[in-house]
Amino acid sequence: MATPDKLLFTPGPLTTSLTVKQAMLRDLGSRDDEFIAMVRSIRDRLLQIAGVSQGEGFEAIPMQGSGTFGVESVISSVIPPDGKILMLVNGAYGDRMVQMAGRLKISVEAIRCAENETQDPAALETKLRSDPEITHVGVVHCETTTGVLNPIEAFGRIVKAAGRSYIVDAMSSFGALPIEMKGAEIDYLISSANKCIEGIPGFAFVVARRTALLSTDGFARSLSLDLLAQWRGLEQSGQFRFTPPTHSLLAFDQALRELEAEGGVAGRLARYSANHRVIAEGMARLGFRSYIPAGKQAPVITAFHYPAHPAFRFEEFYRRLSEKGFVIYPGKLSQVDCFRIGNIGRLFGKDMAALVNAVADVLSAMGVPVPTH
Amino acid sequence: MATPDKLLFTPGPLTTSLTVKQAMLRDLGSRDDEFIAMVRSIRDRLLQIAGVSQGEGFEAIPMQGSGTFGVESVISSVIPPDGKILMLVNGAYGDRMVQMAGRLKISVEAIRCAENETQDPAALETKLRSDPEITHVGVVHCETTTGVLNPIEAFGRIVKAAGRSYIVDAMSSFGALPIEMKGAEIDYLISSANKCIEGIPGFAFVVARRTALLSTDGFARSLSLDLLAQWRGLEQSGQFRFTPPTHSLLAFDQALRELEAEGGVAGRLARYSANHRVIAEGMARLGFRSYIPAGKQAPVITAFHYPAHPAFRFEEFYRRLSEKGFVIYPGKLSQVDCFRIGNIGRLFGKDMAALVNAVADVLSAMGVPVPTH
Repeated sequence: MATPDKLLFTPGPLTTSLTVKQAMLRDLGSRDDEFIAMVRSIRDRLLQIAGVSQGEGFEAIPMQGSGTFGVESVISSVIPPDGKILMLVNGAYGDRMVQMAGRLKISVEAIRCAENETQDPAALETKLRSDPEITHVGVVHCETTTGVLNPIEAFGRIVKAAGRSYIVDAMSSFGALPIEMKGAEIDYLISSANKCIEGIPGFAFVVARRTALLSTDGFARSLSLDLLAQWRGLEQSGQFRFTPPTHSLLAFDQALRELEAEGGVAGRLARYSANHRVIAEGMARLGFRSYIPAGKQAPVITAFHYPAHPAFRFEEFYRRLSEKGFVIYPGKLSQVDCFRIGNIGRLFGKDMAALVNAVADVLSAMGVPVPTH
Repeated sequence: MATPDKLLFTPGPLTTSLTVKQAMLRDLGSRDDEFIAMVRSIRDRLLQIAGVSQGEGFEAIPMQGSGTFGVESVISSVIPPDGKILMLVNGAYGDRMVQMAGRLKISVEAIRCAENETQDPAALETKLRSDPEITHVGVVHCETTTGVLNPIEAFGRIVKAAGRSYIVDAMSSFGALPIEMKGAEIDYLISSANKCIEGIPGFAFVVARRTALLSTDGFARSLSLDLLAQWRGLEQSGQFRFTPPTHSLLAFDQALRELEAEGGVAGRLARYSANHRVIAEGMARLGFRSYIPAGKQAPVITAFHYPAHPAFRFEEFYRRLSEKGFVIYPGKLSQVDCFRIGNIGRLFGKDMAALVNAVADVLSAMGVPVPTH
């Protein structure tokens, strides 16, 4: 390449390490022993990250497609024909799960709150008590819409006490924020290859409680996204039912190795937290206000309000930053004008500092006054 | 790598060129202008390969996941709630579409024939005349089960004359066998990145007649696999609705360039035909009988009967070939013991000849007599 790629300050696909990408310079057969052993090892390491093991009754199941395909594989496979899912929604990804259930003709109801707030666990408790038809509760751990972090452990204890099943979309948190499947009483957790584990896109994965999974026979509404059949296929032959993204899996195997070398989830969280501090403090110095209060903000992606100055136009801001080699992310809020800056992927403090400097330069060039202090 | 990868004589994932894999040594943002332009160009070139264009009313729509996900995106998105699909089945992939429709609770019926034969077009005509409930007809072009080639043009004329819609799974033929969307009266054609175009796995794609596609509003049974929504998203913003496999698309862009450099579909067909001749003649010399008669055999993948000799055991045969660096493929036939040898991917005559030599050596080592002539 003539010029290096731009740095991606997005929720994914992310900037990944060269070694992760180089792991894809191979062609492995999908029935090959080496490939089968690698998939087994990937599944085991995913369980470790979730703090569980097969021996403790949990299973890791990769599913072809993007993260949304992984979420749909759960929603469409585990809710019985007469089941009902209650979604706790405070962002676009929770909303997407509501839409998904509706499309699948699954009974669904949502408890909503503002996108910069989190749900009151007491409201969940009351709702579950009043509606015996609810069989499943779903929530997004870190809402990528804003970076708001939902209290999945508090919700999980209530869901468990009420005898319902619990689905957590941990797309942009798994691998960087500690998640205990057992502690949070999670039955199905979903994440994706190209988020905090820093692989490349191509598949999502589900960590499932085996007893829950085994009780879903006959529920799957799709052949491709059938979670139980996918698991059975992998257990019986070590193979995927349908062509796996072999190269994405090769990259993921390497990405898991690099996660471990960084000190696992704790090490990754330390780097992401440091990244986030640089960006949060730097943007605050430039006068930007973050949308989520600090106590509820995950160190993953941060939404910033547009500056009030009339010379600020997001499209120009985005384009100028991109021309300097920094790709940020538009907002996805229904009510408020925000843009987003991600700090996950193969990015370090110096990259975050360089972005802050570029933001200052771009604002000046656009004629938006930058505070000096 | 210490040792080069084994050669893959399979229906995919395939052996690909180093340059195709090297195209993945980048990280592009999914909203990046360069990425959006590349996706547009990929879609245009797919239409060209199908002998059509947007101006002529056709659309190319990539869909995340394996080929089966692409097939399910069509079946689940284009058949109306009260529609019915008639499948012409002579192998496992046609059967899979029947199973898929059943899972989706779509009315489905199959006309079946032996796996080494093709359907009688007259039987299709009679069936369509007798059953007005049938809205769609589906068939697999080259059944990867055996390599048998179905007469999609003859079927298409009958489907068209009867006023029904026509779905062709061209998974293992598109890019190597000439297919005319218009000539064969195809409304929806499905293929995959890691077949004859020699990309890496990660997505499938659909070539669709726009008028047909536009008439499917509200039919989609899935959010992830919603074909019309996927197309609308790509048309409106140039972006995928959900995270695209950016690296697979980079590889595919390069694979399309290499297809063109080889002389397009005609050039690729010439190499695959030459590959197939080497394997067909070589295996015949070693006493193997192919399952499909020569006139109905696509130069893509060939099924061979097990030798009758009692010393032949397929597992050992497969393992010994694999140890020599040649990965073949097991059979998938319901009634007959066969194995398969693919000749697609970045393979040349010398690779096919080397495989034949390895087969001869392995048979000798196993104590299976090899004819000498």
